[in-house]
Amino acid sequence: MMVGMAKRKKISTEPYRGVRDFYPEDMRLLNYLFGKMRETVEGFGYVEYGASILEPAELYRAKTGEEIVNEQTYTFKDRGEREVTLRPEMTPTVARMIAARKRDLGSPLRWYSIPNLFRYERTQRGRLREHFQLNVDLFGVESEEVEVEIITVAYKLIKNLGAKDKDFEIRVNDRRINDALYDKFGLSPEQKEKISKLIDKRNKIPERNFNDALEEIIGNNSKAFTSIIDSNKKLVENLGEESQEVKRLVRLIERLNKNGIKNLRFDQNLIRGFDYYTGFVFEIFDTDPENKRSLFGGGRYDNLLEIFGQEKMPAVGFGAGDVTILDFLKTHNLLPALKNSIDLYICRVEKELGDQINEIADGLREKGLNIAVDLTQRKIVDQIKLASKQKIPYIICIGENEVKSKKYKVKNLESGEEKELAEEELVNFLKK
Amino acid sequence: MMVGMAKRKKISTEPYRGVRDFYPEDMRLLNYLFGKMRETVEGFGYVEYGASILEPAELYRAKTGEEIVNEQTYTFKDRGEREVTLRPEMTPTVARMIAARKRDLGSPLRWYSIPNLFRYERTQRGRLREHFQLNVDLFGVESEEVEVEIITVAYKLIKNLGAKDKDFEIRVNDRRINDALYDKFGLSPEQKEKISKLIDKRNKIPERNFNDALEEIIGNNSKAFTSIIDSNKKLVENLGEESQEVKRLVRLIERLNKNGIKNLRFDQNLIRGFDYYTGFVFEIFDTDPENKRSLFGGGRYDNLLEIFGQEKMPAVGFGAGDVTILDFLKTHNLLPALKNSIDLYICRVEKELGDQINEIADGLREKGLNIAVDLTQRKIVDQIKLASKQKIPYIICIGENEVKSKKYKVKNLESGEEKELAEEELVNFLKK
Repeated sequence: MMVGMAKRKKISTEPYRGVRDFYPEDMRLLNYLFGKMRETVEGFGYVEYGASILEPAELYRAKTGEEIVNEQTYTFKDRGEREVTLRPEMTPTVARMIAARKRDLGSPLRWYSIPNLFRYERTQRGRLREHFQLNVDLFGVESEEVEVEIITVAYKLIKNLGAKDKDFEIRVNDRRINDALYDKFGLSPEQKEKISKLIDKRNKIPERNFNDALEEIIGNNSKAFTSIIDSNKKLVENLGEESQEVKRLVRLIERLNKNGIKNLRFDQNLIRGFDYYTGFVFEIFDTDPENKRSLFGGGRYDNLLEIFGQEKMPAVGFGAGDVTILDFLKTHNLLPALKNSIDLYICRVEKELGDQINEIADGLREKGLNIAVDLTQRKIVDQIKLASKQKIPYIICIGENEVKSKKYKVKNLESGEEKELAEEELVNFLKK
Repeated sequence: MMVGMAKRKKISTEPYRGVRDFYPEDMRLLNYLFGKMRETVEGFGYVEYGASILEPAELYRAKTGEEIVNEQTYTFKDRGEREVTLRPEMTPTVARMIAARKRDLGSPLRWYSIPNLFRYERTQRGRLREHFQLNVDLFGVESEEVEVEIITVAYKLIKNLGAKDKDFEIRVNDRRINDALYDKFGLSPEQKEKISKLIDKRNKIPERNFNDALEEIIGNNSKAFTSIIDSNKKLVENLGEESQEVKRLVRLIERLNKNGIKNLRFDQNLIRGFDYYTGFVFEIFDTDPENKRSLFGGGRYDNLLEIFGQEKMPAVGFGAGDVTILDFLKTHNLLPALKNSIDLYICRVEKELGDQINEIADGLREKGLNIAVDLTQRKIVDQIKLASKQKIPYIICIGENEVKSKKYKVKNLESGEEKELAEEELVNFLKK
């Protein structure tokens, strides 16, 4: 046998490059995160939707750009010569679904989903080819009430994961404020786009490179421009306090402050990458001095339905990825100790009791308990070892005596404590 | 604007061919099914794992066959010239994960997952290119206790979905029984394989074609052979009651009968498609006379870890797909009326109450209720219409009076009934 084996080509046990296997302990953590996400957004009346990871490639060409589709997504031709993409983001999908049934659905709509998303990237720390992302979107309302709600939902999500206000900071901006400033400087559309992209990556490049690039775009004005984008006060002086966009943002910040969300500030240099944002944007940052990274963000994108030949529809949303959030929780020591979903392991002492033990287990299951029954008939000590290894909290051993008396000695596998309980007591004990 | 729009290419709102969009009402149904699956298998101590849909193509070449990988899966080359497959089934993945950490994990292991799976198929009714499938596997135990448990889990799953015993039938077999019969007829390995494939599709082809094909494989013996595979009694006479495989299967059926699972029968013609099964197999059939289709099934596959160059490890499992089960539930009128996850819609009567209403909503959320607050300030009658359309069960309208009195008139949106309740009463009322 082994000779035959050695000849055959051995298949690797590694997952595909850049994706993750979720062993039960990893899955527990993921389910914990998904549970908090669901609980938070459903609390605000968001309902879940879903879709396939397969989408026609053209869906992303419109607003994401040919280059990204060709170079940063998984796009391939199926046997019918159709170009298919593994979705790199969820927003085009949700816009497609709403566009398809706009009339039936009515509005406003509060929708969420926790899709897996794919990016073809060089694999490096924290940059995976597949990750999960909570997507929360509110369609059909123009008023700033939506911004208030979306920020509140994002804030509550992080708080529900155990973070304190000091652990993170919410930065808000409105792209129309940047546009108003660009207009003051008389910039052309091309200059505006270049400057936005430059500001977006300002934190990632040396100050000198930023200054040089800025000068290349707007020449002599670059010093004056920088002094304004470095000071919110100067910006407001420049645009005037009567500017609609400034007033709206100030009002938003004041309302959120009054509602108890105080770790919030205006950051006129917050741009966010996606092309489809049309006004308000926000992003949440870790305040850890070692690593002030962005956790997640979102914004308003009122025009996306136009790519389906439909009228525009107001929309505000955000996407929060699992990898970044789990990193944040780890950094701030907020990962919970998660228990196994199994409540009790039943160890079999005698060979012929299979059916009686299954009956006892079924009784416990009917009370909502999760029970794993031993099928190996190994030595008791080995069964205890196995249950401990799998982090099951309690064990009972059942032999003829227990079948008759219906009394069981429950052992806590962490502390080693033992306790004799009748069946009904056992149920209550395990449910606590 | 519209002129510009008309010129631009309109993107289709259809999903990719052969996959589904899950609008909130579809998602509710899917979540109901997943919930029942989880509840059932966790009751038996199975723990959840997960993995990416992307797998190296070689994982399927070993046991699934080059032909299937090339013609029935989504397989493409990534930019590193690696061949990647969108997983068509979960068993090779779970075997890979266990092979990778066999020593650390210990054994036995009870694992489950609800992955989405992909098949490149001609699209036709009920044959989708993506579906979800509960996978339940027990690794590391040779004894027939495992077969007892796996059948019980499958049985409980259908029962927990509301089916009666008469709605379905469980058929069991052991491939080694077929092998023993083939040996009696002195068949070569090639003949065995051909005959197995032929029996597997017997129900789908005309009897004549079956007879002709059988004669082509085993010549004159074909009549004698057919008379045996048409009668369990003759089979047992032929193999002898002392045959180990027959004895084991009879014992299994008797034990399950004694445990209350009676809609169970031996079907020597049950083969199941996958190559990796090594003995026991089972399949559950709808008993609806109009449509006696297979719902799902599984079996024992003790050798799969060998493809990773490891020793074999006993394994028994099954996979139950969402599409087939939902069809079954529909046929038998077992689809539940599912309520919206939103408990209450709050309609705003006056403009300036946004923050006060949010405060009231937050109080209710803290009690675990899901509350959608109106952000449109439309007319009350329109808000009520919207909430009804979205199948939200209750609505309250809040104006200055309600903010002051903290008493709310709750309207049941289905019956139209109204009731005035104070905040604490409202919580209890909605929680029921």
